[in-house]
Amino acid sequence: MTAVTTRHDAIDLALIETLFDRLAAPDAERIGITRDAYGPGEQRAHALFVETAESLDLIIERDAAGNHFAVYPGADRERPAWVIGSHLDSVPQGGNFDGAAGVIAGLSVIATLRRQNLVAPRDIIVAVFRAEESTWFPTSYLGSRAALGRLAPEVLSLTRADTGRTLAEHMRDCGGDPEAVATGANWLGQRALQGMLELHIEQGPTLDNEALAVGIVTGIAGSFRYREARCFGEWGHSGAVAKPYRHDALMAFAELAMALEHTWEKLEQRGERATVTVGQIATPPAQHAFSKIPGEVGFCLDVRSGSPAVLAELEATLHEIVERIGTERGVRFDLGPRSASLPAPMSETLTQRCQQLAVEHRISHCLLPSGAGHDAATFAQAGVPTQMLFVRNQHGSHNPQEAMRLADFVEGVRLLTTLVQA
Amino acid sequence: MTAVTTRHDAIDLALIETLFDRLAAPDAERIGITRDAYGPGEQRAHALFVETAESLDLIIERDAAGNHFAVYPGADRERPAWVIGSHLDSVPQGGNFDGAAGVIAGLSVIATLRRQNLVAPRDIIVAVFRAEESTWFPTSYLGSRAALGRLAPEVLSLTRADTGRTLAEHMRDCGGDPEAVATGANWLGQRALQGMLELHIEQGPTLDNEALAVGIVTGIAGSFRYREARCFGEWGHSGAVAKPYRHDALMAFAELAMALEHTWEKLEQRGERATVTVGQIATPPAQHAFSKIPGEVGFCLDVRSGSPAVLAELEATLHEIVERIGTERGVRFDLGPRSASLPAPMSETLTQRCQQLAVEHRISHCLLPSGAGHDAATFAQAGVPTQMLFVRNQHGSHNPQEAMRLADFVEGVRLLTTLVQA
Repeated sequence: MTAVTTRHDAIDLALIETLFDRLAAPDAERIGITRDAYGPGEQRAHALFVETAESLDLIIERDAAGNHFAVYPGADRERPAWVIGSHLDSVPQGGNFDGAAGVIAGLSVIATLRRQNLVAPRDIIVAVFRAEESTWFPTSYLGSRAALGRLAPEVLSLTRADTGRTLAEHMRDCGGDPEAVATGANWLGQRALQGMLELHIEQGPTLDNEALAVGIVTGIAGSFRYREARCFGEWGHSGAVAKPYRHDALMAFAELAMALEHTWEKLEQRGERATVTVGQIATPPAQHAFSKIPGEVGFCLDVRSGSPAVLAELEATLHEIVERIGTERGVRFDLGPRSASLPAPMSETLTQRCQQLAVEHRISHCLLPSGAGHDAATFAQAGVPTQMLFVRNQHGSHNPQEAMRLADFVEGVRLLTTLVQA
Repeated sequence: MTAVTTRHDAIDLALIETLFDRLAAPDAERIGITRDAYGPGEQRAHALFVETAESLDLIIERDAAGNHFAVYPGADRERPAWVIGSHLDSVPQGGNFDGAAGVIAGLSVIATLRRQNLVAPRDIIVAVFRAEESTWFPTSYLGSRAALGRLAPEVLSLTRADTGRTLAEHMRDCGGDPEAVATGANWLGQRALQGMLELHIEQGPTLDNEALAVGIVTGIAGSFRYREARCFGEWGHSGAVAKPYRHDALMAFAELAMALEHTWEKLEQRGERATVTVGQIATPPAQHAFSKIPGEVGFCLDVRSGSPAVLAELEATLHEIVERIGTERGVRFDLGPRSASLPAPMSETLTQRCQQLAVEHRISHCLLPSGAGHDAATFAQAGVPTQMLFVRNQHGSHNPQEAMRLADFVEGVRLLTTLVQA
């Protein structure tokens, strides 16, 4: 078999548009898209996937966790296989593209090969992972972790935020076998894998602002997080306490925020990449008042970077700043419980190969990190060579305004189609 | 009549302690002190005042707004009179001293003179003003404004926060005549006044920190306020939007807070006095999330100073900063409705006289501004020579922990007693 240049007209645009439309249809009368993990929304989407895979004459597999796989047999079925996949659940009132684009990309790659009567040198497995979003169950990547036999059994007892029922119960409802999952039973993890490829809409504006169709991801950021941080100062009358006697918790927070931003700025000037975000803040409503110096403020902090060294530097600086401000202002920071995740680097070989192919096929692109987490991180952390592609998207993600142009999606599919022909 | 040095042992300590105890008694089983304006709490306190004034054989007057006055006739009743007064309402779950200390100080001054068989050269009027706190009705100084015939009639239609009933109804319940108040009818404003004196607990920690019993107030701060300010940025994924593309409303707020604090610091270095407070802040709970860049943040701003020039400078700087940050960060500040009050300067003559007397009578003291508003401001703004004295207090005010030592209160009473003997 010879790798051929994938022409635009080889792509089945009608299939792509039909799949996105049919995925969105159940939510036509509602605001945004809601495909609940291990619930009716996700189930309907998986059914559409199975139906499409059947129409493409693929081998359909299903594992104990309810993940679905559609296999396009390659010329040599013993060779390590490619996995192209993502998830079909969405956040409540989200958009139609987050997750789904990666699954439809996988099907499109196979449809494109089929149309041209091309058989790939190795199996191509299109994978649909369950429950990637952490809004339903309070943890991410449930499906992809189970797919690799890496889901800790206690996770099966977590309850879904809206139903209050356990993951095990929901899994059973969807035809899964939680007891088997608990033992590590899985289908995909038994196969030797050539690499895992995930196409995803970009969730930020970089590609749109830089007028590029595709982003070749260099790594998925790791993070450290303090979800329930607080600063304690001293309540006082806003007019009656002179400057030297104030212990204003909110002014202390503002100084912390600016100091973190300043540190981040210096890192970026050195060429490092990170994000620093305080997503939520509040003075306590039962105690605060217009004319009171705040004695307390609650906030959260989310710091991400693809570089462990940058994360370590930012966290060390955080503790230094908190210490200094505490002393200088007579306030006390309590950062509360810490959570963290490790960066998941992409395969350098695959990243370089994608760049070569993008140049060769005149696909407008750049390298960029992924600040958000994805199923691909599970594979990278399991040691599978992994590569993500971003497709230009407007209005971010996790909201009804998500917008991806078909032409940009096609550029991503062309790149993947070429890549898996080796 | 000769002005005599007021000795400590001339003061009726038992009367003072009894009055504070009896004022607090109805709240013994509850948290803090709640004397509701134009309600049962304030009524009970006024009844105690009347009873005490009768026992001191004073002439009792009551005006259409329900303010009470107790007159100790002077040697020459035609001379302009002294007013010593404050209020007896409290905030919900407040302390026993805010307001009440000023009324009990007036009664103590007269009790002291009576004990020594001293008649002052002019009438001394102890005044109790209704409804000074703005937590019950949404405006301050209701009683003192009515006492001078300066209450706008439409204010009578304001409703009390907890009962939903109008000020006019509450006033009538308490034996007042709102129709007469609406025409400007009053008792006190008809008298020529030598000066208005208000003793009040300090609501900040300056006296306590500097180990001084009495503060001689230089002026009551004016203010400008934005109670419903907001900053609008752009919502985004906390990990997916690179630094140059962020429009983080909360980081913009933090920069504003720091810039205002910096301006304030420079003013203080020049010897000016002011306070800058953001008492409340919140990202919108329906939209914010741990992993979202905040696209909106709401906050309030309270700036106070005794100097109109300082207020003007701070407000001009506020607008410059908001403009600059808006441009630099691609966010928009909407400061919302503005309210403001003018500074109320104290009488320089009275301030100097108090200083002289404090030195003479070895009363530990300093000059300091009042950041909070008081009934005295109504008199200063009406052109009456006005002087406030602060008494050292622990734990601020408007809370159950308010704490004033009897010995410090006595120092304030000594100063007032000497002052009104001229």
